[in-house]
Amino acid sequence: MRLPDGLLQARHARLRARLAESGTQAALITSRPNIWYLTGFEGSAGVVIVDGEAVHLLSDSRYAEELEALDHCGLGVRGHVAPSGTSTDALVAGHLQRLAAMALAYEPGALTVGHFDDLRARTGGAASSLRWVAVEALVEQLRVHKDAWELTTMREAGRRLSAIAGGILTASLSGRTERDVAALIEADLRRQGFDKPAFDTIVATGPNGARPHHRAGDRVLVDGDLVVIDFGGMYQGYAVDVTRTVQLGATGDRQRQVWLDVWRAQQAAFAVLRPGVAADAVDAEARRVLTAAGVGEYFSHGLGHGLGLEVHEAPRLGPRRGGVAGALLEAGMVFTLEPGVYIPGWGGVRIEDDVVMTPSGPEWLTAPLLEG
Amino acid sequence: MRLPDGLLQARHARLRARLAESGTQAALITSRPNIWYLTGFEGSAGVVIVDGEAVHLLSDSRYAEELEALDHCGLGVRGHVAPSGTSTDALVAGHLQRLAAMALAYEPGALTVGHFDDLRARTGGAASSLRWVAVEALVEQLRVHKDAWELTTMREAGRRLSAIAGGILTASLSGRTERDVAALIEADLRRQGFDKPAFDTIVATGPNGARPHHRAGDRVLVDGDLVVIDFGGMYQGYAVDVTRTVQLGATGDRQRQVWLDVWRAQQAAFAVLRPGVAADAVDAEARRVLTAAGVGEYFSHGLGHGLGLEVHEAPRLGPRRGGVAGALLEAGMVFTLEPGVYIPGWGGVRIEDDVVMTPSGPEWLTAPLLEG
Repeated sequence: MRLPDGLLQARHARLRARLAESGTQAALITSRPNIWYLTGFEGSAGVVIVDGEAVHLLSDSRYAEELEALDHCGLGVRGHVAPSGTSTDALVAGHLQRLAAMALAYEPGALTVGHFDDLRARTGGAASSLRWVAVEALVEQLRVHKDAWELTTMREAGRRLSAIAGGILTASLSGRTERDVAALIEADLRRQGFDKPAFDTIVATGPNGARPHHRAGDRVLVDGDLVVIDFGGMYQGYAVDVTRTVQLGATGDRQRQVWLDVWRAQQAAFAVLRPGVAADAVDAEARRVLTAAGVGEYFSHGLGHGLGLEVHEAPRLGPRRGGVAGALLEAGMVFTLEPGVYIPGWGGVRIEDDVVMTPSGPEWLTAPLLEG
Repeated sequence: MRLPDGLLQARHARLRARLAESGTQAALITSRPNIWYLTGFEGSAGVVIVDGEAVHLLSDSRYAEELEALDHCGLGVRGHVAPSGTSTDALVAGHLQRLAAMALAYEPGALTVGHFDDLRARTGGAASSLRWVAVEALVEQLRVHKDAWELTTMREAGRRLSAIAGGILTASLSGRTERDVAALIEADLRRQGFDKPAFDTIVATGPNGARPHHRAGDRVLVDGDLVVIDFGGMYQGYAVDVTRTVQLGATGDRQRQVWLDVWRAQQAAFAVLRPGVAADAVDAEARRVLTAAGVGEYFSHGLGHGLGLEVHEAPRLGPRRGGVAGALLEAGMVFTLEPGVYIPGWGGVRIEDDVVMTPSGPEWLTAPLLEG
């Protein structure tokens, strides 16, 4: 995919500012989405080293053509290929050794103990003057504020996902298995230009709906069921994610009531969104509505999660943990609002849409449902 | 999915023998496929602790129903749920603290530095009497020898994938984009009962074929193209994987010749398979055929890889690394044979099928091609 001119360089500049803040002069990036964010490289292997001089992408000979072309793309990224028969880690270690006496930021959540120990050993171990500094969310903290290009991409993705969600509500689903419905949705994702599902599509009918993370099985959808359908797609690298709970045929009073309670909780949460609001306060608002309706105890997960290169990323929208305040929802953040009620043996309802916070307030990325 | 009686218990017994060999008395399992292998649990979060008493699965409240049911399933697995509002890691740390003075095996390739440091801190850090022992391939070494149930599953998966591969050869592909062809194949995967693609389907036409890991883009397939189509599916938890290179319409002499060279290399590799043969010797045989044909320099990757719960797992079939002999191919191992030739600017050919080694010799899991 062709990235706009200057996009990566702007990200590199923000990363360098992060490094300066954390008292480091270089960085080792091992998280795949973070590598994509900094270089546009989609390969399945490779690492990035940022030093005073450049952003280096190191990988193996399978990617030789792409890596060699990089130097001429004007993206501010230099490619390096491990010669055939040698490991990328040997190449990485060579680069790291040239950083001697620097403080090197690394990603503790994206580097395994095995890889860390191997790179330390290759670069001289405890005797080396290279100082390894674990920096949490080194790149994720940049990714949480989407740039203009990302927002354009995600708005388009949301529009396409909404078209599929709209189709579900009018499709004839009774008599199909959960798995068949998942297959229909995944074919729609392709037709709408998504590269792939963002996660395994969830179709949970009847009592299966009580398990928030049920996938799609052999149970047949029948009239009278509530069916939780949760799906997402990857569009030009970005994830969007919606859930619809469909009432098949004539559902009962309680089913309709719980559906309405969940929908109202989502609307209430949206209504309190403004730039700078605390994520836990938004979660609390949805929880308040469900508690007032008598089903709060069945809302067993947080209200939402950030979206971007990953389908679950910062910010987290949920109750405070251990009394600690959560993130503030700031302009440029994209996240889901997905209250749910899960009643063992009875079933579940979840309604999920995606929102971007803009400087002037929240904006739906996916088209939310109108009342029942 | 219903696992056969005694299956997990047999795996647990093999794991306990591995622990004894490595001088450890307990294990912390953090790799998702390894957790699946030992418990049948498909959730996206959770860890396994094996101690003298039981195999414990610990996860969060989203999975409460499944975890609580586990104790009654007779699978030799006990479920533990972190109470809502607490972290699974706190629960894990509590369990680990009860193992004081034991040697605890962990998976250095599946535990991040951040997670490791957190668990160490929660269990008393350096002051703790718990001894952490990195054991490479702790569970992978068990997984490399498939049990009878796995082989039955993978044979069925291979049969279904072959049906799709056969269909490709007779489909009319000219005029479609790479992306369209990928969508057709993925719809076929669903129809054949696969849960999802095993990886992003590769459709590389014309010069794109020179990049072994090209995905599927907007290029249109035209007569005269060689098209590399590499796809796989997950069937009841197991991955199978084939590649076909289709000659569209009237291809040239060189295209037909390279196709035949690659096919012969695959057949030659199969012909030297027997229980106990060295993986690098099988790779060398394919390489010998391609070198004799004058295209050996363009075979830029190893001959194959193991298949199972992951689409790339042990054994690796490739040249010796640093003079060290590779794995022996033993009965119960499942792997691909996928020689390829990639000529920059010209295109590529890869032919891939899956094989299981049985006590009496190799058996194709996917239906190999007859001579061109």
